[in-house]
Amino acid sequence: MQPVIKPHVVVVGAGFGGLQVVRGLKNAPLSVTLVDRNNYHLFQPLLYQVATAGVSANEIAYPLRSTLRNQENAGFCLADVEGIDLEGKKLQTSCGTIDYDYLVLAAGGRTNFYGLDSVAQNAFGLKNLQDAVRIRNHILHQFELANQQTDPDIRRMLLTFVIVGGGPTGVECSGAISELIHLVLRKDYPGLNDQTVRIILVEMMDKLLPAMPASLSEATRRILQDKKNVEVHLNKVVAEYDGDTVTFRDGEKIPAQTLIWAAGIKAASLYDSLDVKKGRAGTILVQPTLQIPGHAEVFAIGDAVYFEQDGSPLPMVAPVAMQQGRYAARNLLGLMRGEPLTNFRYKDPGTMATIGRNQAVAMLGRFHFSGFFAWLAWLVVHIMQLIGFRNRIIVLINWAWDYFFYERAVRIISPE
Amino acid sequence: MQPVIKPHVVVVGAGFGGLQVVRGLKNAPLSVTLVDRNNYHLFQPLLYQVATAGVSANEIAYPLRSTLRNQENAGFCLADVEGIDLEGKKLQTSCGTIDYDYLVLAAGGRTNFYGLDSVAQNAFGLKNLQDAVRIRNHILHQFELANQQTDPDIRRMLLTFVIVGGGPTGVECSGAISELIHLVLRKDYPGLNDQTVRIILVEMMDKLLPAMPASLSEATRRILQDKKNVEVHLNKVVAEYDGDTVTFRDGEKIPAQTLIWAAGIKAASLYDSLDVKKGRAGTILVQPTLQIPGHAEVFAIGDAVYFEQDGSPLPMVAPVAMQQGRYAARNLLGLMRGEPLTNFRYKDPGTMATIGRNQAVAMLGRFHFSGFFAWLAWLVVHIMQLIGFRNRIIVLINWAWDYFFYERAVRIISPE
Repeated sequence: MQPVIKPHVVVVGAGFGGLQVVRGLKNAPLSVTLVDRNNYHLFQPLLYQVATAGVSANEIAYPLRSTLRNQENAGFCLADVEGIDLEGKKLQTSCGTIDYDYLVLAAGGRTNFYGLDSVAQNAFGLKNLQDAVRIRNHILHQFELANQQTDPDIRRMLLTFVIVGGGPTGVECSGAISELIHLVLRKDYPGLNDQTVRIILVEMMDKLLPAMPASLSEATRRILQDKKNVEVHLNKVVAEYDGDTVTFRDGEKIPAQTLIWAAGIKAASLYDSLDVKKGRAGTILVQPTLQIPGHAEVFAIGDAVYFEQDGSPLPMVAPVAMQQGRYAARNLLGLMRGEPLTNFRYKDPGTMATIGRNQAVAMLGRFHFSGFFAWLAWLVVHIMQLIGFRNRIIVLINWAWDYFFYERAVRIISPE
Repeated sequence: MQPVIKPHVVVVGAGFGGLQVVRGLKNAPLSVTLVDRNNYHLFQPLLYQVATAGVSANEIAYPLRSTLRNQENAGFCLADVEGIDLEGKKLQTSCGTIDYDYLVLAAGGRTNFYGLDSVAQNAFGLKNLQDAVRIRNHILHQFELANQQTDPDIRRMLLTFVIVGGGPTGVECSGAISELIHLVLRKDYPGLNDQTVRIILVEMMDKLLPAMPASLSEATRRILQDKKNVEVHLNKVVAEYDGDTVTFRDGEKIPAQTLIWAAGIKAASLYDSLDVKKGRAGTILVQPTLQIPGHAEVFAIGDAVYFEQDGSPLPMVAPVAMQQGRYAARNLLGLMRGEPLTNFRYKDPGTMATIGRNQAVAMLGRFHFSGFFAWLAWLVVHIMQLIGFRNRIIVLINWAWDYFFYERAVRIISPE
């Protein structure tokens, strides 16, 4: 009997998409290697809560080796992928060359500053744990500095927080910063005047949450402005940021030592050198089967993929990545068995965004709603999707605590 | 009516001692400023559990502003104290000069490498959150590297963990590393042979836990060796460490990429330039009233103080710092009122050290015991002393989970 050599599948990226691919290949006669530069899966939808001291980093970061323990045909490799040789079917990584028979690219995106160098240098992105912890440390530190400062103008600059991008991340982030400050930090700094604090949400389009119907966009704007003390600026574009002053394209200047950039995503840098057809923001144009043109053995999924459906590109969100992941796994198995592949089609499960206590907006199919029940739905959906029962319990305890006692546990300026 | 100017008390350091001082001054006609370089109180006894992925950093770090919220006469200043002008009664800090009428020095200690520069450069201390998170990241990363390594010698070097210092920190740390590896990581790395891993505890004296009676020292050594696979080397002294090889004074060399130094503490660097009488390791010699000779308005407490009782110096442990803190507050109030001060006397509440699951040693008065009940006592005492009800619940959940499922939640190589 000859030893059976199983085909080797390499999955690059352990985000929502990559993990679905690995799971979809369970029990198949394959050897699967998951490659990621971190040893954890990051639950990105709650990243803004790390940035606003609500949950701690490890509660939304789940060790990848735990997720792979029950899957015999899968292994993990902690590495940075530095290059992809599509012809030679191999990856150059920080720990050597990895050969593959099949490849799934699921490396996701990174913050897109649209060529604004001064913003890239001085603003915070919000795409990974490091970003989030840096924002938390920075916000808390600004309050300590303001507390020691007597000049009212400097104090105002220290406590002006500008969030750019009116999508779900920007909306959730500005709502959460507002609650952190007005519900929690005001108790920590009795000497600080609430009026000194400015939270400004900036969006270049004429409405917030552009993917949502107008009624929900408007409800979001109203709740942020009326209940959360957030100044919402629509039709406004950032031109420059030097760390102390935000300059807008219309010439207005706002002194602010904090700018959080949630205005866009582009494909991971890994794809920059990849010689394939690209869509907007460096994304890879894939075939309806999620294969890369000319390379049947390579699939690409998630935020870094350009996929048009019914005339418009799919959004860069977790449900798209997850559905594409399951689909890519199925097509990969079909390819191996010589079966005909099928075309991907996204089924929109709806979108939600939370604005704060008891406040969220949700669009589930033809149901559009806002307020308490949208908030409750958001809460249930997010708790259910967290990986790991312990994480769910601990996040629930933290949320309940914060909800009833108007607290945030993780008000720690941590060593970086 | 003239405005009443209250005397200003500055407390430097928000450790166990400093917090007791602040609390002891509650309701007194004083203005109290607590100064610390971090915005949290650190529960040092569980630091080794952060280093071994058992609890997350924020669970043992409690925001100082929360502890001060209910004390009207106390404020907090986030600053590094850079100099102390005893004659001028002022502190130079990273955010300006602070004048005081009374001063309590409670800045604690830092790792003492006893002049071994190569060790200071290449070994890990275990005195603050940064140290602990760095150790956790390092241990987890060593396993990833070993998993990608084929050379058995290199693999062994990657997975040899040397802990220096047979006091409670060294014992608890080596026991916890052993359990992290043998109970948890072996499931994450099915390809790694348990035999490759070496955990070595080194002590220069002829017994572990020198403060404990011989029977408990011996029990500790036996449990570590027989049940935890820890090699215990007594009468052994480190001479040098280059990051790859530990060289001992007797000439023996052990290849190891991890050296954790838990062998000594010296006074905080702040005290280096202080022109007062010093004891061993840079500690301040105080009077029986905890005042500094020649400066009745300055008290010093905690790890950085040399205080002899019944012929031997008090140990550098939390109970000493806490009792001195309460005492210093009382004497300070007495001084203010012109009452005679009283002499400090330490009441030893006993010592404990946990070695791992169901295993600890404890000396409470004349009761010496080891095993399950010592472990239970350790657990109860430590949970009760954690600040914050939420932290207690979450640490308890984490411990219970780890206990029943042989897990460690925080197996995250986090961004530093």
